[in-house]
Amino acid sequence: MRIQDLGDKILKGDRRALARAITLVESSRQDHRAEAAALLDQLRAVGRQAVRVGLSGTPGVGKSTFIEAFGMMLTGQGLRVAVLAVDPSSTRSGGSILGDKTRMERLSRDPNAFIRPSPSQSHLGGVARRTREAVELCEAAGFDVILIETVGVGQSETVVAEMSDLFVLLLAPAGGDELQGVKRGIMEMADIILVNKADGDLKPAATRTCSDYAGALRLLRKRPQDPEGFPKAMMVSAQTEVGLAEAWTEMQALIDWRRENGFWDRRRADQALYWFDQEVRQALLARLETGEAKAAMAELSARVAAGDISPAGAAEAMLREHLRM
Amino acid sequence: MRIQDLGDKILKGDRRALARAITLVESSRQDHRAEAAALLDQLRAVGRQAVRVGLSGTPGVGKSTFIEAFGMMLTGQGLRVAVLAVDPSSTRSGGSILGDKTRMERLSRDPNAFIRPSPSQSHLGGVARRTREAVELCEAAGFDVILIETVGVGQSETVVAEMSDLFVLLLAPAGGDELQGVKRGIMEMADIILVNKADGDLKPAATRTCSDYAGALRLLRKRPQDPEGFPKAMMVSAQTEVGLAEAWTEMQALIDWRRENGFWDRRRADQALYWFDQEVRQALLARLETGEAKAAMAELSARVAAGDISPAGAAEAMLREHLRM
Repeated sequence: MRIQDLGDKILKGDRRALARAITLVESSRQDHRAEAAALLDQLRAVGRQAVRVGLSGTPGVGKSTFIEAFGMMLTGQGLRVAVLAVDPSSTRSGGSILGDKTRMERLSRDPNAFIRPSPSQSHLGGVARRTREAVELCEAAGFDVILIETVGVGQSETVVAEMSDLFVLLLAPAGGDELQGVKRGIMEMADIILVNKADGDLKPAATRTCSDYAGALRLLRKRPQDPEGFPKAMMVSAQTEVGLAEAWTEMQALIDWRRENGFWDRRRADQALYWFDQEVRQALLARLETGEAKAAMAELSARVAAGDISPAGAAEAMLREHLRM
Repeated sequence: MRIQDLGDKILKGDRRALARAITLVESSRQDHRAEAAALLDQLRAVGRQAVRVGLSGTPGVGKSTFIEAFGMMLTGQGLRVAVLAVDPSSTRSGGSILGDKTRMERLSRDPNAFIRPSPSQSHLGGVARRTREAVELCEAAGFDVILIETVGVGQSETVVAEMSDLFVLLLAPAGGDELQGVKRGIMEMADIILVNKADGDLKPAATRTCSDYAGALRLLRKRPQDPEGFPKAMMVSAQTEVGLAEAWTEMQALIDWRRENGFWDRRRADQALYWFDQEVRQALLARLETGEAKAAMAELSARVAAGDISPAGAAEAMLREHLRM
């Protein structure tokens, strides 16, 4: 199929064409990369935008159950929902966090939902780029909401936050002392904190945890992109499907306010700058892993390890003689 | 003074010459950098080695009190002790963690001790390089033990561990639940954990905390560079000067074992490789911040922010047209 035709089918909402296009952008083959670039340029010109919701939560908080229940609630409102994932560990562990669709059986059968596991790439940079491109493809295919899931592993939360319009942190009820378990940097990224499992025996703990986080959020520095009352902590129960519609109402309120006040566009522009910068840096560093530079690094490393040359001296030689600096 | 003469004085243990040489290596001026390189080459040829002890501890654990008491104990044994610091925040906060020598009044007056605050550099890379060079100068000046202090800020612990022969984590007594407050990565770097303030009312809590960490250390994967019983958790009281000599005895036992089994040399060689790699990477990325490349990044960034070009497209243009890749 010609790329142009593939693009046209995606714009008509053809799910098979979408799946095929995602496979194309996930490929590392040079000719596939060129086709992917052409396809993305074609689709970008159309300018469709979805609400991109980043979602982070460590194993045990009930993330799959939440995504399924939240996704079904959205499709029940007539919205089309795509679920993507950023999981840099998926190649090593052999199983992606979304690899097993049976985790979300109902949602995966829903004609208005589209679930795609994390691309299998060993570098977070590769996963990030492929997922960003999959997000663009889903937007072009007319999805209204794109959920981008991650587990809290290393930098993956930053990656997801940098490709989302809003970032949701999903937590489980916990003892009061565990508040410190969430890194401050993650707290500062969150637009909405959802304390899940606010049902049955865990309800009192969920209430306390939610109140603790609400307090912690108030202590953070006020951000210009937040209307009054945000960032916000709320309780939900994915199991009993309580609080999901309310959470979506709050997300929409936040998104609407940001759109009206210019922060939606500004955030997307800032994110484009972030990814431009990241791609340049990663490509620069990748020079050290190929061809003549790689051989020179290996040779100089051997001399450094043997104590024949200082690290600084070797670095200078590398930069001057092999990297033309 | 000629660099050769400065080097000779340092080798004779002249403290003024040492202080002057550290000021030299801390300078960013091109001619100073060249002089510093010549000086370090001269001193490196002599091959003196001290025991480099990295020490991390967040504010409140009694780090200054510990360094002073531990340093006095060492000088009391006839050893010469240098204290350096890695604090990338020192330029921003205006006050280095070691800037105020009154924090260690007794130790700073001890003729066998030498205290130097963290270099004022805005980049952690710059702080790391300057501190590594200061470590080499102190070794050449005949110090037996070099304590390299850091607060637990971002990557500064990794930086200190990568320039130390052994890495000590200083903790305060805490409730049993707080164990998770120490990041796993930091735990994995520690050779010895010292629970400070094991005195008075806090003794029971210190005992419990020490036992908790001893248990946690046993759960970590066995490392080849550790003899039986290491990494180890111990209690100390800097205030009452209890446990300090025992801690030093354990440090020496670990160091002796590593020397005999080749791990001392291997660690220093691995660290040299680490710093070689880091310097090359930092210099490569620094290309983006100077001259024509900086201007091109700015121009492309403006086009990305305006939506005229995709992040990936801009990155490709940058790499092809401006970075000759």
